[in-house]
Amino acid sequence: MKLYGDAISGNCYKVQLLLEQIQRPFDWIPIDLASSGNRTGHFLQVNPNGEIPVLELDDGRRIAESNAILCYLAEATGFLPDDSFTKAQVLQWLFFEQNSHQPFVASARYIVHHLRRPVRLEQKLQEKMESGYHALEVMDRHLRDRVFFVNDQYTIADIALYAYTHVAEEGGFDLERFPALLKWLERVQSRPHYVPMNRGRLGQSQEVA
Amino acid sequence: MKLYGDAISGNCYKVQLLLEQIQRPFDWIPIDLASSGNRTGHFLQVNPNGEIPVLELDDGRRIAESNAILCYLAEATGFLPDDSFTKAQVLQWLFFEQNSHQPFVASARYIVHHLRRPVRLEQKLQEKMESGYHALEVMDRHLRDRVFFVNDQYTIADIALYAYTHVAEEGGFDLERFPALLKWLERVQSRPHYVPMNRGRLGQSQEVA
Repeated sequence: MKLYGDAISGNCYKVQLLLEQIQRPFDWIPIDLASSGNRTGHFLQVNPNGEIPVLELDDGRRIAESNAILCYLAEATGFLPDDSFTKAQVLQWLFFEQNSHQPFVASARYIVHHLRRPVRLEQKLQEKMESGYHALEVMDRHLRDRVFFVNDQYTIADIALYAYTHVAEEGGFDLERFPALLKWLERVQSRPHYVPMNRGRLGQSQEVA
Repeated sequence: MKLYGDAISGNCYKVQLLLEQIQRPFDWIPIDLASSGNRTGHFLQVNPNGEIPVLELDDGRRIAESNAILCYLAEATGFLPDDSFTKAQVLQWLFFEQNSHQPFVASARYIVHHLRRPVRLEQKLQEKMESGYHALEVMDRHLRDRVFFVNDQYTIADIALYAYTHVAEEGGFDLERFPALLKWLERVQSRPHYVPMNRGRLGQSQEVA
């Protein structure tokens, strides 16, 4: 199994974290976002949408979209419950992550942390922060009387939301406002086989500086 | 079963279309987006994220996020195949729809069709159009040698992507550029129990003008 990804991407880290936690070996194929390696002709053969991560199975079939990959890998592992309603709740949070959280929390981090907050993007950054804070508030409220996102059971909903939330401060978000969310971050970090972002094992073909 | 929604929303229409096609009766509870009915205290009890649609089961349990609702309703119907890899491909397109298509194609339509293209949003509109065209191109290329999105079988991936694509021209997109996509739109429209957006049966509590 191969995972095409870039260590700076929370979407790639999600999949890496799950693979570590279900103890599935994989090869990491580095795609350098900084040099637009995801927009080259070679990679566009792998994913015509030009997005990472992409999971390639041993028979060559491929799955794109981080949260679709999580669902595929988590099936029958306990990280994605079998019960229809519970599974729907996990999916609800996975879609929330992609449409209400990642476009704002991750984009703000990209502007601040990777692009070093250029003046021309200041207004866009403010819009991203506002929507990002809304998402973090929704999460914090939900977690006030819960241990994990769905049925107090650690699932791929937690993994997906953890990826960009735990580095939200790099985008300028003040997480001290969200005590329930901070406690949840710690609970995720104490799960078996947890690996931190950017410092975990990244497969066989890349050393991380 | 109740569906909280607004007829102008493609995300709500998706769920309505699937319910019609699997012939499941439901009550439509109108939430008026134009008057911010989704941000009132009452509705925030239903969904703290303030988003529609929300599906309420007969026992009172609720599911938010249109594509999570589609997955729940489609289970064991043939609209969501059982095979793990095929299911992952359906999910891949559902996440693509939420992060690479709806935020651009639907938002452009909202600016043009509902807000009547105010000058202050012109730059934002151009950004939405550019990303929206990228998504439509990815779809058109994928459909060139396919009947439907996954395994030439009509699934919730088609329903999800159809919702905002078939009204993309209301956002200023020129669909004539995408012949494969236009043929696919026709194929979706010819499926059994198809109902058009805004003109289909909307449950028992709302007449559409």
